[in-house]
Amino acid sequence: MIKTLAFDGDDTLWHHESLYADTQAKLRAMLAPHIDAATLDETLYTQERDNLALFGYGIKGFMLSMVETAISVSGGRVTADEIHTIIGWGKDMLAHPVVLIDGVERIVRHCHGRVRLLVITKGDLFDQEGKVARSGLADLFDAVEIVSEKDERTYARILDGHGVAPADFLMVGNSMRSDILPVLALGAQAVHIPYRVTWAHEHVAAPADAPVGFHTLDSVDDLPGLLDQLGWLEPLAA
Amino acid sequence: MIKTLAFDGDDTLWHHESLYADTQAKLRAMLAPHIDAATLDETLYTQERDNLALFGYGIKGFMLSMVETAISVSGGRVTADEIHTIIGWGKDMLAHPVVLIDGVERIVRHCHGRVRLLVITKGDLFDQEGKVARSGLADLFDAVEIVSEKDERTYARILDGHGVAPADFLMVGNSMRSDILPVLALGAQAVHIPYRVTWAHEHVAAPADAPVGFHTLDSVDDLPGLLDQLGWLEPLAA
Repeated sequence: MIKTLAFDGDDTLWHHESLYADTQAKLRAMLAPHIDAATLDETLYTQERDNLALFGYGIKGFMLSMVETAISVSGGRVTADEIHTIIGWGKDMLAHPVVLIDGVERIVRHCHGRVRLLVITKGDLFDQEGKVARSGLADLFDAVEIVSEKDERTYARILDGHGVAPADFLMVGNSMRSDILPVLALGAQAVHIPYRVTWAHEHVAAPADAPVGFHTLDSVDDLPGLLDQLGWLEPLAA
Repeated sequence: MIKTLAFDGDDTLWHHESLYADTQAKLRAMLAPHIDAATLDETLYTQERDNLALFGYGIKGFMLSMVETAISVSGGRVTADEIHTIIGWGKDMLAHPVVLIDGVERIVRHCHGRVRLLVITKGDLFDQEGKVARSGLADLFDAVEIVSEKDERTYARILDGHGVAPADFLMVGNSMRSDILPVLALGAQAVHIPYRVTWAHEHVAAPADAPVGFHTLDSVDDLPGLLDQLGWLEPLAA
């Protein structure tokens, strides 16, 4: 039975959250005359969370949440020019080159042809498609699944669509909430590779008692070793 | 061979463009002190078109384009409160109930079980998934494809994914540009049912010499008649 190895996109294949963090730092500096950094962070996060049900994930929603936050924390005193600047930051984020995480390309090439390779990434369809295309990795993956939420039901639908049994599925990602827990709940395996920044919304504690199928690695460089250990890596076709 | 009938979503299954038109009318009124209606419409459209490569289609991009337009046409004099109001209009659009176009539900039920039924809709993944769910029609369709652009390549990928030959595929939609021309180019059939408003971007003339496979109807109510005429409607299973 062919094994299926799926990678999360943002902060697993390429850098992502650091882009948000850098932009948020600029917003803090802009709004410093109105509000301290900690309260700004908290207000922005509340705004993002409140908007999630309408906006879903992604940079455009983040842009709108920043504008709303700037208006509310400044008591309406933020200027049109400043709002224009905020929108410009968001456009820079959207146009930002895709920067692969160290080791990713080598590891994906190593696995290509030995297991079925998927990308399963959440967020804005248009933005995520663009990132997959610009990553230069698109041809190495058998399929790309862009979804609006990564919960147990979503993973079940994807496994079903590809005819993969949970026992033959392993997900690699940085978010305990989106990449690990729902996959373990299906009886599949998951490898957690933490990224240096995690959005508060994705911050969920690791399972306390290391359930079956849960693995954690410091770096994607260690993935082939784990796959070997699990007996997952077929020898390359001659 | 089972036939596959695909419906566009926005302005084919449910009302959509009218929501944009209504919001744009509010923006015109708000910005009337700064700019006349015709110039506003033109500026907004240019802004939307310029943003398309970064934002893709959808309401969040429209919200950001409205804010940018308000800032530019007012020479930066639009207030934070007005921008807040614009964002509120966009949120109202996102939360707006899905209103099916007259006749759609009856026709979809009529076709259900006789042909394979798809929705192929373009735009924001999160917003479109929500609309399909809220339409009440989700269970009548065999699959829902939400795509970032409806071009020949996209349709070819979908047909391939569902194992459908172009000769067995018929697309129903309101946009000549997105629903008709790329489908005809693949050698499949397409039914144009115009909606009362068409976004300038989607406005493309009908093919002059009525190519093979091109049909046009005034209303979805006429679809079963056409399908009968084409020999497409299997009798319902007993």
